[in-house]
Amino acid sequence: MKVTRVLLINGPNLNLLGTREPEVYGYETLQDIVDELRSYAVAKDVELSDFQTNSEGDLITKIHEARTTVDGIVLNPGAFTHYSIAIRDAITGVGLPVIETHLSNIHAREPFRDTSVLAPVCLGVVAGFGRNSYFVALDALIRHLGV
Amino acid sequence: MKVTRVLLINGPNLNLLGTREPEVYGYETLQDIVDELRSYAVAKDVELSDFQTNSEGDLITKIHEARTTVDGIVLNPGAFTHYSIAIRDAITGVGLPVIETHLSNIHAREPFRDTSVLAPVCLGVVAGFGRNSYFVALDALIRHLGV
Amino acid sequence: MKVTRVLLINGPNLNLLGTREPEVYGYETLQDIVDELRSYAVAKDVELSDFQTNSEGDLITKIHEARTTVDGIVLNPGAFTHYSIAIRDAITGVGLPVIETHLSNIHAREPFRDTSVLAPVCLGVVAGFGRNSYFVALDALIRHLGV
Amino acid sequence: MKVTRVLLINGPNLNLLGTREPEVYGYETLQDIVDELRSYAVAKDVELSDFQTNSEGDLITKIHEARTTVDGIVLNPGAFTHYSIAIRDAITGVGLPVIETHLSNIHAREPFRDTSVLAPVCLGVVAGFGRNSYFVALDALIRHLGV
Amino acid sequence: MKVTRVLLINGPNLNLLGTREPEVYGYETLQDIVDELRSYAVAKDVELSDFQTNSEGDLITKIHEARTTVDGIVLNPGAFTHYSIAIRDAITGVGLPVIETHLSNIHAREPFRDTSVLAPVCLGVVAGFGRNSYFVALDALIRHLGV
Amino acid sequence: MKVTRVLLINGPNLNLLGTREPEVYGYETLQDIVDELRSYAVAKDVELSDFQTNSEGDLITKIHEARTTVDGIVLNPGAFTHYSIAIRDAITGVGLPVIETHLSNIHAREPFRDTSVLAPVCLGVVAGFGRNSYFVALDALIRHLGV
Amino acid sequence: MKVTRVLLINGPNLNLLGTREPEVYGYETLQDIVDELRSYAVAKDVELSDFQTNSEGDLITKIHEARTTVDGIVLNPGAFTHYSIAIRDAITGVGLPVIETHLSNIHAREPFRDTSVLAPVCLGVVAGFGRNSYFVALDALIRHLGV
Amino acid sequence: MKVTRVLLINGPNLNLLGTREPEVYGYETLQDIVDELRSYAVAKDVELSDFQTNSEGDLITKIHEARTTVDGIVLNPGAFTHYSIAIRDAITGVGLPVIETHLSNIHAREPFRDTSVLAPVCLGVVAGFGRNSYFVALDALIRHLGV
Amino acid sequence: MKVTRVLLINGPNLNLLGTREPEVYGYETLQDIVDELRSYAVAKDVELSDFQTNSEGDLITKIHEARTTVDGIVLNPGAFTHYSIAIRDAITGVGLPVIETHLSNIHAREPFRDTSVLAPVCLGVVAGFGRNSYFVALDALIRHLGV
Amino acid sequence: MKVTRVLLINGPNLNLLGTREPEVYGYETLQDIVDELRSYAVAKDVELSDFQTNSEGDLITKIHEARTTVDGIVLNPGAFTHYSIAIRDAITGVGLPVIETHLSNIHAREPFRDTSVLAPVCLGVVAGFGRNSYFVALDALIRHLGV
Amino acid sequence: MKVTRVLLINGPNLNLLGTREPEVYGYETLQDIVDELRSYAVAKDVELSDFQTNSEGDLITKIHEARTTVDGIVLNPGAFTHYSIAIRDAITGVGLPVIETHLSNIHAREPFRDTSVLAPVCLGVVAGFGRNSYFVALDALIRHLGV
Amino acid sequence: MKVTRVLLINGPNLNLLGTREPEVYGYETLQDIVDELRSYAVAKDVELSDFQTNSEGDLITKIHEARTTVDGIVLNPGAFTHYSIAIRDAITGVGLPVIETHLSNIHAREPFRDTSVLAPVCLGVVAGFGRNSYFVALDALIRHLGV
Repeated sequence: MKVTRVLLINGPNLNLLGTREPEVYGYETLQDIVDELRSYAVAKDVELSDFQTNSEGDLITKIHEARTTVDGIVLNPGAFTHYSIAIRDAITGVGLPVIETHLSNIHAREPFRDTSVLAPVCLGVVAGFGRNSYFVALDALIRHLGV
Repeated sequence: MKVTRVLLINGPNLNLLGTREPEVYGYETLQDIVDELRSYAVAKDVELSDFQTNSEGDLITKIHEARTTVDGIVLNPGAFTHYSIAIRDAITGVGLPVIETHLSNIHAREPFRDTSVLAPVCLGVVAGFGRNSYFVALDALIRHLGV
Repeated sequence: MKVTRVLLINGPNLNLLGTREPEVYGYETLQDIVDELRSYAVAKDVELSDFQTNSEGDLITKIHEARTTVDGIVLNPGAFTHYSIAIRDAITGVGLPVIETHLSNIHAREPFRDTSVLAPVCLGVVAGFGRNSYFVALDALIRHLGV
Repeated sequence: MKVTRVLLINGPNLNLLGTREPEVYGYETLQDIVDELRSYAVAKDVELSDFQTNSEGDLITKIHEARTTVDGIVLNPGAFTHYSIAIRDAITGVGLPVIETHLSNIHAREPFRDTSVLAPVCLGVVAGFGRNSYFVALDALIRHLGV
Repeated sequence: MKVTRVLLINGPNLNLLGTREPEVYGYETLQDIVDELRSYAVAKDVELSDFQTNSEGDLITKIHEARTTVDGIVLNPGAFTHYSIAIRDAITGVGLPVIETHLSNIHAREPFRDTSVLAPVCLGVVAGFGRNSYFVALDALIRHLGV
Repeated sequence: MKVTRVLLINGPNLNLLGTREPEVYGYETLQDIVDELRSYAVAKDVELSDFQTNSEGDLITKIHEARTTVDGIVLNPGAFTHYSIAIRDAITGVGLPVIETHLSNIHAREPFRDTSVLAPVCLGVVAGFGRNSYFVALDALIRHLGV
Repeated sequence: MKVTRVLLINGPNLNLLGTREPEVYGYETLQDIVDELRSYAVAKDVELSDFQTNSEGDLITKIHEARTTVDGIVLNPGAFTHYSIAIRDAITGVGLPVIETHLSNIHAREPFRDTSVLAPVCLGVVAGFGRNSYFVALDALIRHLGV
Repeated sequence: MKVTRVLLINGPNLNLLGTREPEVYGYETLQDIVDELRSYAVAKDVELSDFQTNSEGDLITKIHEARTTVDGIVLNPGAFTHYSIAIRDAITGVGLPVIETHLSNIHAREPFRDTSVLAPVCLGVVAGFGRNSYFVALDALIRHLGV
Repeated sequence: MKVTRVLLINGPNLNLLGTREPEVYGYETLQDIVDELRSYAVAKDVELSDFQTNSEGDLITKIHEARTTVDGIVLNPGAFTHYSIAIRDAITGVGLPVIETHLSNIHAREPFRDTSVLAPVCLGVVAGFGRNSYFVALDALIRHLGV
Repeated sequence: MKVTRVLLINGPNLNLLGTREPEVYGYETLQDIVDELRSYAVAKDVELSDFQTNSEGDLITKIHEARTTVDGIVLNPGAFTHYSIAIRDAITGVGLPVIETHLSNIHAREPFRDTSVLAPVCLGVVAGFGRNSYFVALDALIRHLGV
Repeated sequence: MKVTRVLLINGPNLNLLGTREPEVYGYETLQDIVDELRSYAVAKDVELSDFQTNSEGDLITKIHEARTTVDGIVLNPGAFTHYSIAIRDAITGVGLPVIETHLSNIHAREPFRDTSVLAPVCLGVVAGFGRNSYFVALDALIRHLGV
Repeated sequence: MKVTRVLLINGPNLNLLGTREPEVYGYETLQDIVDELRSYAVAKDVELSDFQTNSEGDLITKIHEARTTVDGIVLNPGAFTHYSIAIRDAITGVGLPVIETHLSNIHAREPFRDTSVLAPVCLGVVAGFGRNSYFVALDALIRHLGV
């Protein structure tokens, strides 16, 4: 039986999780969440790899590599959400299902966070559930992939 | 043990599901999906009630009633998403966690669908996964309620 | 021979016709016009039903019902023209030819009346001919239906 | 002596008064305020009727009925203030003096609350005085009617 | 009995009709349609003259001449619809009833086609019925002229 | 018993009252209205002082002085309503309740009059009742001060 | 002694002067005004030629010809004022002093008349004085040329 | 014979004339120009008074005073052109013919100088002729007054 | 062997080339460049015809004629680039490959030159290379035509 | 040795310093800060004069006077920052180096405070350091003047 | 004889060429095109180096290095076209002729692709010719360099 | 005694200093300025480290590292000022005082340079003083840190 492979990508500043604005994002580190998410994935016969970067270029290259190595992407693009048309083109280019995922409800914050240049080329969006967003997005991807 | 109660509200034109633009929304009827969603909820010890209306006023009144009868709302506001500030005020007014839910990826359609006047006062957003959106949103709400 | 059936829908405040701003809309009541329009239709082997409402929800529901009962709709949406995306979705949803019709020339009034959110999904637009607009729109629909 | 008749209309969500965001709107219920306002009116030889609805259509129909039954309207349109052009047309249509009234200072809240589509066709505006707004608006209407 | 005279003016590129984007405009030539329209007019005791030009200046001059030679104008301004304020001034200047007419539903195409600088000074608008638009517009003008 | 003190400030051009655009503002002079308003205030145990100026700087300085000498301000800022951020800062700076007051309904005039840069920092707004606006605003202030 | 030569150019619809909207533009014909203006010029040792056209292309070509035949241009561009960048380029191209001239005060009419695409490349602007505008503009040009 | 009286008002920074940005405004002082303009006026049987101020309030008050003392105003509002709605109201209030006058071509400078809030209520506009602008504007006013 | 035929169209003011703003466009006349371009074409077995006009209507008609007489168009639309939707429709209508060509870099000039209403319906764009632009555009067209 | 002279200008409401919104601006009075700043200047061989006004006109006149009496200006324009084009012209007119200085970080407050109409004509900007802003700005000016 | 050296830079996602959206960009790989372009260059005595990156920072650094090593740059900035002001500054900084080059016609795609922040500082633009764009741009650069 | 540590970060293209647009930025290299700034810091018992990068990602990572190693940051973000929301989030995330610093007066250049997405989350802004900006910003930071 073919294993379903999912890549979790976290964009800029998400490595600060647990230290950065905890009243907004909580006290857990990104590693804590990823570890738990990986266990959760395993229980669903999904192999989860993950990647965090502050670099737009590296994020693009990672998406390119994913084209032949995974079945779908859970992407928390951080601030790149709002301006990186280059990441948008990468998503279109590889043709994988990508779920735009946010910890906070980006629509309840500064006005410039209300717009995503990525969402129009993603499969869908999950936002506002804190650390739960990752689990919900992973579930949505698994459902979509028909695992 | 207290049962968790969730209300699913579907706004205008969702009663057409299965007949309306099936290439966008699929061939299942709303009733088909709600039935399956209710079974899914039961399996998680969640009692799911549901309501569909084409009337903004009735939708508002239903949210008011929900204040004392359910623990959270999965809301697919349909086109009201884009202009009903009255529904926004109803959500703020009752203080329940509400998840804005869409079948289609509203960001990949006409420009006017890119903006939600409701999202800023909802707990979070789930969009783009077709009928799966309801299941994913329900899961997100259950996680949030800590069931 | 199959009779062609046309539904005339009048939106909010059109029940005031004859009492409301007569210098703009004339002194005839809506009933007067509808009666004459029905006779006109009969002469063309067209069966005209009509409906007036101040409620967006009821208007949507009426459009839904029309899907299986009429061949086309002459719709004077009144002020809903400018903001009811829900009605827009209803028109798209039922797939009937709908002619947006206005008594006044909406482009010659306040700037906000210059934009219709419905026109892009209607078959066409007839506006500015006073009570004649209904007759012209009915003719246009009959021509389109190839009666 | 002819009695002056005034209609108080409260729009969507105002039925939540006393339960909804009390830090903004206070703890009194709408009924408490209306009762006191009616007594206040009686003392000024004014007969006050009142109506609350969450439905735009019902609100419009109520304004239509008022045309022949009252001398003026104190209208708190709630969120309809910001988008209901249909209510605007109803106000224009009946030709009664209408005072747009708000509990809160709508200019000190979210940017979209800064604009009223109704104010241009109302006699005037009273906003920001909490429950006092109703009394002040009633006084303004009485002065205008020259009671 | 005085004969009613109507002028049909077609603006830029309408001479391509039948060759240009037939999937949008149909395969008939402009001449085919005008011939049929003239017969239709004759049957209603209306004398139809017609004029096609790609030149804004010539179109303006034609409108000027019409002031004393016809009773009304059916005008398909083509792309001039969207920017020719000079034609707008010509319409205002001659004081004739002019009906803005379009083959396609201009509101269902590129965003810049949604705005007409001419509509505010025309009697009314007919758009979206293909070749039928001319017949419907002629009827509307005849009704207006009370022939 | 402490007397309640209220300051009435009238901004630029209000000294023309009675001479300027009487069809909009009426034939009474500002002095006529202020005299009657002062009598009205006295009857409510309120001491009314007043000030008119065409100078933004003097208006600001007057607001500063009011900080320690009155309990609230009725302010008709005239055209400063629309651009004087300096007056806005003065209102914020002194911390007194200020009621923005207008004779005409500013929302029913030129578009640039629809926006007030002062309203967001005022207690509330009264507009559109002609000379009655001053009496209504004074009443609103007295109610607010709990006299 | 070299004679100063001035060209008066009138754009679209100005040939209607005297017939078109006389309440705005007066009852004199353009020829009447030009004749009087020519006499006025002669008295100042200025040779006035004139040209009227409804065609943007002809107007451009006339400006080109003027480069070597006159010392300056009084230009009433009519509606071209608001959109003809081609005329703007012609003015820049010939390097002559051009005075943008209007009969009416274009700033007191529809909003779209408030903007001139020509003014930035003209020597100056004269507007609002009816038929006097031509005399004033001619004087301004003569002063500028230091005749 | 009644003498025609004209008031020349110069707004902020025009007292710097001759010292300020001479490459834009020339080396003459304002006094030099006014003196010559007064002589010019005398020769036309016009009595010219003048006033310069950097204060918006004083400028407004001066316009008020002019209501009963002069027949028209030549106004160079300087930077107030672009934002002083208070001066606009003063012009409307006094009902005198006012000519907005500028030394430079305001349309050929920074974008914010392209818009005048005063022009819509002035008789007309003269701009771009340097010191000649004053003479041309005076002539225009004299012609308008029919001296 | 079939000869490839290319039409070079130059819009308004390009006839001034060599005389108009030479610091921007160079000292060569349009004829000089066209002559050299024709020789260049001949060497590539391409027959080059050319046309210059200041008239939008003539330019449209020329494009129409080209439909059956040439294989592609090199078009320097001059200022029409920025507003002639009629030319846009002509390009769409004839279905020929058209290359929008500019001597100057239109993106480095006034903001309004940054937008082309024609580019979306052209094959491609070449801009900024002075007289070389014509040669480069011709090469691009030849490559496209696969000569 | 020539003494360097610097003028400190404080605009509207800065006289409230120490009393106005102390949580934003601190508890020191403007006089306290100016006194300390003067001592600081003396130690650097700089003679500091100062001026505070709520009047735009007086502020302009003060800048004019500064032209011949000081070497540079530290200017805290208060709210005039955002709209006084007249002060902008005064700065341009006198040609002195002016440093726009703010106590608060104007970019972290209301959106309208994000834009300065003065900054483009100032030497530079210092903002956000509370009372330190004056000292930092003075240092910047002294460095610029090369004292 | 000095050899002319040209650098070809390809921005983000262009490494996907041949795999990414082939219906838009074709099936050839970037390497295929570069190889053929290098041969083409050699034939014109031009030495072509090339560089592809997904990283904005690396692209900037490459432009810096080019300052002393090549004579001009053919730059396909990919999505950076639309937002990388940092690349714009790099182009300005090195002072080399840079030709903005695109495979597709960016004006015929999503609205946000219609604007280039780089074009204003480039020598010129070539867009829309698919793989031919590189050859045409190289020719344009060679012509410009006068090789 | 604890030493105060400050980090100077220079963004993209600042490594070109001394070579790039010297008429704007001067002839000194960045190294020259940093060396002098470090000596200046030492004299104030401040330890200055510095970092230059053209990479947004590296700049973000450097800010992250600074969280535990320095007391404040002087940041010249170069072009990232105008769009890098990711850097904005990094500044918010580390909670250090950051001073946005610019050599040139960004408000006196292209319009897009007038807006900073970083300023709202920085302590303050220093701009326009050339190389002095670094010294002034360092002083401002030292004052803020209360060294």
